[in-house]
Amino acid sequence: MNILNEKLGLYTDFYELAMAEGYYYCGKKDQQVSFNYFFRTNPFNGGFSVFAGLADFLDLLTQFTYSTSDIQYLKEQGFKPEFLKYLKNFRFSGNILSVKEGEIVFPNEPVLRVDGNIIECQLIESLLLNIINFESLIATKAFRIKLVSGKQVFAEFGLRRAQGFGAIHASRAAFIGGASSTSNVLAGKLFGIPVSGTMAHSWIQSFDNELEAFRSYSKVHPDNTTLLVDSYDTLKSGVPNAIIVAKEMEENGHHLNAIRLDSGDLAYLSKKARKMLDDARLTTVKIIASNQLNEHVIKTLLTDQFAAIDAFGIGTEMVTGKPDAALDGVYKLTEIDGLPKMKFSENIEKNTLPSKKLLYRFLDNNGRFYRDAIALETENPEEIDVISHPVYPELITRVKGLFFEKLLTEVVKEGEILLKKHTPMEIYQFLKERAELLPDEHKRFISPHIYKTGITQKLMETRNNLSKQIKNLF
Amino acid sequence: MNILNEKLGLYTDFYELAMAEGYYYCGKKDQQVSFNYFFRTNPFNGGFSVFAGLADFLDLLTQFTYSTSDIQYLKEQGFKPEFLKYLKNFRFSGNILSVKEGEIVFPNEPVLRVDGNIIECQLIESLLLNIINFESLIATKAFRIKLVSGKQVFAEFGLRRAQGFGAIHASRAAFIGGASSTSNVLAGKLFGIPVSGTMAHSWIQSFDNELEAFRSYSKVHPDNTTLLVDSYDTLKSGVPNAIIVAKEMEENGHHLNAIRLDSGDLAYLSKKARKMLDDARLTTVKIIASNQLNEHVIKTLLTDQFAAIDAFGIGTEMVTGKPDAALDGVYKLTEIDGLPKMKFSENIEKNTLPSKKLLYRFLDNNGRFYRDAIALETENPEEIDVISHPVYPELITRVKGLFFEKLLTEVVKEGEILLKKHTPMEIYQFLKERAELLPDEHKRFISPHIYKTGITQKLMETRNNLSKQIKNLF
Repeated sequence: MNILNEKLGLYTDFYELAMAEGYYYCGKKDQQVSFNYFFRTNPFNGGFSVFAGLADFLDLLTQFTYSTSDIQYLKEQGFKPEFLKYLKNFRFSGNILSVKEGEIVFPNEPVLRVDGNIIECQLIESLLLNIINFESLIATKAFRIKLVSGKQVFAEFGLRRAQGFGAIHASRAAFIGGASSTSNVLAGKLFGIPVSGTMAHSWIQSFDNELEAFRSYSKVHPDNTTLLVDSYDTLKSGVPNAIIVAKEMEENGHHLNAIRLDSGDLAYLSKKARKMLDDARLTTVKIIASNQLNEHVIKTLLTDQFAAIDAFGIGTEMVTGKPDAALDGVYKLTEIDGLPKMKFSENIEKNTLPSKKLLYRFLDNNGRFYRDAIALETENPEEIDVISHPVYPELITRVKGLFFEKLLTEVVKEGEILLKKHTPMEIYQFLKERAELLPDEHKRFISPHIYKTGITQKLMETRNNLSKQIKNLF
Repeated sequence: MNILNEKLGLYTDFYELAMAEGYYYCGKKDQQVSFNYFFRTNPFNGGFSVFAGLADFLDLLTQFTYSTSDIQYLKEQGFKPEFLKYLKNFRFSGNILSVKEGEIVFPNEPVLRVDGNIIECQLIESLLLNIINFESLIATKAFRIKLVSGKQVFAEFGLRRAQGFGAIHASRAAFIGGASSTSNVLAGKLFGIPVSGTMAHSWIQSFDNELEAFRSYSKVHPDNTTLLVDSYDTLKSGVPNAIIVAKEMEENGHHLNAIRLDSGDLAYLSKKARKMLDDARLTTVKIIASNQLNEHVIKTLLTDQFAAIDAFGIGTEMVTGKPDAALDGVYKLTEIDGLPKMKFSENIEKNTLPSKKLLYRFLDNNGRFYRDAIALETENPEEIDVISHPVYPELITRVKGLFFEKLLTEVVKEGEILLKKHTPMEIYQFLKERAELLPDEHKRFISPHIYKTGITQKLMETRNNLSKQIKNLF
């Protein structure tokens, strides 16, 4: 160990290298191909997904090269000299088109496309899937929490339960999805995300009593004190001591920011604590709640129980995307040297869509998302008349004349990154704007309405023809 | 981004730094403390856990320092000059005791202990929890799979669904838990884990037909060919073509290693494919199966359905530890300057155990695990007579005279790593030996028998006295 000093050319599945070597020795290394990234199911039984991870992926892609020790390692694994020489100078030199980070996307849409020679497109598959699948999962989870937390902000503090260094990507993605800050200081530094946090139980325990612990903290951090009130007894000890310290702080011209509840029944305790604070004329002292929260718990706390909570701290479930823990995104070959390719399946739903494609979003008369259309790159979107359900071609929708957006833009051209850098905050703002255009019925947690993504008639013809050809093969 | 060029002193929760600064300015920086790492619940509703991540954690701990840009960043966050000067020279200089990697461990046991000054012990908390929680989760998951896969080996190939760079830790931990290889080439290089993999559907699609794709691959990699047979139709096309190529390979003195099934009903297809291979006198060609596998699916495939599968490829569920996705390990203060400390709770089960402690394992007359005992460090284990249930003191077990093992050993002394380096293979061998000593009733998946961990009478007295003192505080 460890990864910190490594190039990333080996951050790939062994079979990518085995295939790459195969392409090389089969004389296919200059074949021009196109791959699509897409996922098959929205996570969390939801009605939408948030696309994230693009900037991280592209950043890491620049380090997707091979060091001398990498080449030596591959030699020991049996890779052949000429191919290793090729890898020594490897860098990705193809094109990438993508939807924007923070975009609302749906299953089976080609949200990202990689064009280049067959070796480079194959080798980067695992890195792409690793980063985009994970950050999209977490951004989606965080935004689901945002949808129910309303005016209440939520901080991400999952580092201790995050999956190793996945914590770094998780913090970024959680912020993109709507978290107000992270506890992960390194993520704060790397991405410019606000960092937050105050005290653990160990702070309290390290003093002779709770009051002294609170008082000492408030003296060291008078402008940013949140007191953790559940170390002994929240209502008998924690809140009363917090009130004493809050009053002392006021005498010195300072203000207690908040108290934090980290155990017990958060609805009951928050309402009791709120009343105690209000009775002490500390109406502006906030109440922060943490402890195994997720979108469902927060929803019931706020809408069924009227918990007096101003902010949430969320760890495990947000940074691990529990219970799904993974987005099922895949990366499929769609074209070689201009010829359409597809993954054929007896199960038509698992057939992939061939050819270089683009993705358009048609809007209804109120400017809201109406239908997404997957089209051949060569089609003029102005001329798309109707789109069909990809599996049931008789289900068609007329989109002609509707205003539309082109969702894929070029973010890498001949290996050079064109993507304009956006801060996570800017990406979140974009997500918020986009989500407002998504009708509410796709946002609910229980049986969300399925957003319709169709394919053009020309794409369907291409697929059906290719499908027939393939069936004739056996 | 990105983490690759960073020191790790900021890989911590903001509150650790806020508390550290507080300790510093409250004149507590030289207080000597002891913290315990433990978890409260076995993951996956199981009856045991596998401890892992120690070597990675210690390795990363050596990089837990602050660069100039880290100090600058903290200054911008409002940390004060004198404390920053302290951090500039920071390195962990305390002691760490731990159970061995690969050890079988149980809830509430102090499996790792950190002794040192209060600032260093506090700052490293998040890194410790991040790595140990995750690797222990994954090693446990993998070993559960190992318990049901029997003679059948399983490869880990979860990189594409792993949680960002958590993939690196996941691959190591999966191997420790019993995986036979990883697809993650960088993990292979870093940890000396065998790497494996052959072809994806894109390889097949890149040729005019499946037969040509199989044949070409076998020519480039004649000594390591596994053919993916589900691209078109497993039984009508994939297996027949694989048989043709296997025969051609035999004519050239080579041997087809295996076919891989990646979709459809694995029990049905494997039995049909096995018959076809056997009928073609290819009895030594193996059948590998993949596609959303976990310990439960594998168990039913092998024991209920008699699937003809020789090896498994497992991705998502193993590398994300789905559905738990996190181990609930925590890190609690137990002593300051020789005085016992505990986290008090009205709920006695959540009371932590105070004081510097050691962990002993008592064996039954067959040398199998019988009881674990948590004792004060000052106790002579030879003299431990009875141990009690930590919550129900009337439940006691006599252990005197039984053979016992001391489970905690010193792995860091005054900041220097003493841990002997073990390969992941050696750690897996150790796990295997240990697991053989764990009675079967703790290994079953459905309602496993609870392994009993008790506390000594002296530890109980210490806890009860402290608990009374604390209750008198409010």
